Amino acid sequence: MEEGLRERKKRETRTRIADMAMGLFMARGFEQVTVADVARAADVSVNTVFNYFGTKEDLFLDRREEVEDLQSRVVRERRPGESVVAAFRRDFLDAIETRDWRYGLNDGADLFGAIVAASPSLTARFRELAYEQIQHLAATLAEETDADPDDLTPRMVAAQILETTRLLSGHAVARKLAGESWAEILPQLQRQTEQAFDLLESGISGYCVRM
Amino acid sequence: MEEGLRERKKRETRTRIADMAMGLFMARGFEQVTVADVARAADVSVNTVFNYFGTKEDLFLDRREEVEDLQSRVVRERRPGESVVAAFRRDFLDAIETRDWRYGLNDGADLFGAIVAASPSLTARFRELAYEQIQHLAATLAEETDADPDDLTPRMVAAQILETTRLLSGHAVARKLAGESWAEILPQLQRQTEQAFDLLESGISGYCVRM
Repeated sequence: MEEGLRERKKRETRTRIADMAMGLFMARGFEQVTVADVARAADVSVNTVFNYFGTKEDLFLDRREEVEDLQSRVVRERRPGESVVAAFRRDFLDAIETRDWRYGLNDGADLFGAIVAASPSLTARFRELAYEQIQHLAATLAEETDADPDDLTPRMVAAQILETTRLLSGHAVARKLAGESWAEILPQLQRQTEQAFDLLESGISGYCVRM
Repeated sequence: MEEGLRERKKRETRTRIADMAMGLFMARGFEQVTVADVARAADVSVNTVFNYFGTKEDLFLDRREEVEDLQSRVVRERRPGESVVAAFRRDFLDAIETRDWRYGLNDGADLFGAIVAASPSLTARFRELAYEQIQHLAATLAEETDADPDDLTPRMVAAQILETTRLLSGHAVARKLAGESWAEILPQLQRQTEQAFDLLESGISGYCVRM
């Protein structure tokens, strides 16, 4: 169905508010910006901001549903003969290559990361989001495999994959924030990614066996 | 070194405050109890409570360091020929058998879980704790394997194992809260545990391959 004029206006207003907010957060830090500041910058009322975004944290995280959809698509669009974990390896390596924002590997990911780290409420919201993303991916996997609700495998696999990608991009961003350049970080990130996915694929039965 | 009189008194006061607080939380719910209520019940000042516990959430979670120590001991005391994941399988199955609190499988785990679920601040604190436990276990694994700081394997393995045990006990507690009996839940939990650890050991390369 085509988007009506009314829907398009709403979507544009939403995007404008979120973009303005991100600009303010980047310039001044998350805690220092109020919803009233955002409303003033976007030339709307505070109520309008709250119509689109439930909390100030949501203003910062407005693309979270898009991320969940992208992760489900990795599963649904995996190739013939490809497992779910192989599809995510391919997708993550592609995101490193193209510096895509979907795993937090874009050029400004370190700025974004610094703002989150400086704000306890954003850090908490991010942890919640990570949990919600796992639930969402698990639901997609359960659908794809027609799993029983008492089968915990979809949730385990979802957690393993997303905790791995989060760890990989988190480590890269931490190194950038510590002063290394992307040119130093990215080649090693590529190697770490291959190793991490090898471990996911083959299991940890041989890890740290007592001699 | 033996515990002095002064240390013993302090430890006893701390335990008494935490026990009284837990009793009040169980009876009235977390949000309905103030730190002043706890102080009055334990016959100490509000300042004394805050000397021992930084926040009201910490009163509820006073055994968290003990949990981290127990998890590190599972690694350090694994048996000859035993991998880390095998040691956790054994420890978790033992906790099901003995209904031990360390993985939240004790008889009152559902009451505890209900209080957490009803309180957004406790739920957030729990997510943070889960993250801290992973960091702590990862540090132990890095020590045991003498891993390089850029080697992400200890963090991956720690996350895989603790997310799995958390998922298993969380699922059991959710079933108890939904009205099933421990007698129904525990045998299935045992089977789910074996399956989950089998998957951890052998990897997910065969999961959900596109035909």
